[in-house]
Amino acid sequence: MPGPIQSIQRAAEVLKLLAHGGAHQLSVGEIARALDLAKPTVHGILRTLQEVGFVEQEVEGGKYRLGAALFQIGTSYLDGNELRAKALNWSDTLAMRAREAVRIGVMHGKHVLVVHHVFRPDNSRQTLDTGALLPWNATALGKALVAFGDNWPDGDLQAFTRHTLDPEQLHADLNLVRDRDWAYDLHELVEGEASVAAPVRDRRGVVVGAIGISGPVERLCDSPDQPPRLELVSYVREAARSVSRELGGLSW
Amino acid sequence: MPGPIQSIQRAAEVLKLLAHGGAHQLSVGEIARALDLAKPTVHGILRTLQEVGFVEQEVEGGKYRLGAALFQIGTSYLDGNELRAKALNWSDTLAMRAREAVRIGVMHGKHVLVVHHVFRPDNSRQTLDTGALLPWNATALGKALVAFGDNWPDGDLQAFTRHTLDPEQLHADLNLVRDRDWAYDLHELVEGEASVAAPVRDRRGVVVGAIGISGPVERLCDSPDQPPRLELVSYVREAARSVSRELGGLSW
Repeated sequence: MPGPIQSIQRAAEVLKLLAHGGAHQLSVGEIARALDLAKPTVHGILRTLQEVGFVEQEVEGGKYRLGAALFQIGTSYLDGNELRAKALNWSDTLAMRAREAVRIGVMHGKHVLVVHHVFRPDNSRQTLDTGALLPWNATALGKALVAFGDNWPDGDLQAFTRHTLDPEQLHADLNLVRDRDWAYDLHELVEGEASVAAPVRDRRGVVVGAIGISGPVERLCDSPDQPPRLELVSYVREAARSVSRELGGLSW
Repeated sequence: MPGPIQSIQRAAEVLKLLAHGGAHQLSVGEIARALDLAKPTVHGILRTLQEVGFVEQEVEGGKYRLGAALFQIGTSYLDGNELRAKALNWSDTLAMRAREAVRIGVMHGKHVLVVHHVFRPDNSRQTLDTGALLPWNATALGKALVAFGDNWPDGDLQAFTRHTLDPEQLHADLNLVRDRDWAYDLHELVEGEASVAAPVRDRRGVVVGAIGISGPVERLCDSPDQPPRLELVSYVREAARSVSRELGGLSW
């Protein structure tokens, strides 16, 4: 069986660098240095990526940035995501019942990728999180996903607040998540915010995603140091079960 | 100067096929047939794309679909889009003033790509259009973009309603758009809906995008066969000028 195709691997590295390199525009030289490749090699890759619309070149300065075609194709991923498709209505219902923002997440490498986000149903200004990457260790979504996975994702666990759990606490918390089949975070990612999430299973019984709510502790909890209210937990769990049922993961 | 790199071109074709092929999951054989490539060639491309996370393979059936990494990279395109970044606040303001949904569009091949969408500021259920492709010939956004471009995009002009303009009417309409510096559509894409848009210019004076509103003719127009109300037009034009100013396209 032939090995992976090097030029495609390198093209993917260039795209990932442009996406996550901090700067959104890079010169041929900057890309060549970052990826330890020769400039003519990088230039050939960029020209081809430009031809297919995956990168664009700045009119002034000539630096490269991601192209619209890539955005447009990337968006299509959501249309093909069965979890998201089955969960759309249930997440709207959950947002209305809980009066909080709803997110659906899947594991993507070391992070939780938000594949759907329903705004809190009020008129406040909110930022769309679809496509955002969240840390797994400080979010209910992430804990609901990792608790049922085979291993913890690689990498150090970042502490975001003084409430972010250390590895030992996290280990105990994930055991609880497995017992209860739902997860929460309390001030662990953002001081003053909490989240609740429950796993979604497909027809094989495998956890393929998680659905949950997040918001200020004042609204989610009876007091700032108590877990989220069980009424809200029940809404989240009902939503997760409904989506699992749609995916064939529950037959009753 | 070396030519484009064939394996990258083919990988891009595979991704575009998975994005736009109707089915969101395709087998190696289906892709090979659609692109007129040998199955082992397609298999090698898919394996590499899977390794970098750009495609995923179904657990059951083994068909391929777009991968989460591609979605995540594609989303980053928006962060690097200067037009969108500069327009975020102005589009919120426009939505509040006009009490209608706001869209920002750029030309992408033969279509208008929606790079930002602000919901109509009420509690109604709305679908996010970011990433959607709109026909240029039946939308105010498209007409505001193409009127200031060098050529009409290739391809036949589809008629969506009995009000969609024929090429001769469209030609005359684009002349008006150039004169007035704003565009509208009335029942041209959807019976009963109207839209208004104005071009956004960068520091070179080049039209790089358009911003506009859309909604029911009952709200946008005084009567169903009249152009949108000039008060709404003025809001749209002010928003477009504000964004142009941020991009350096207007110095006063």
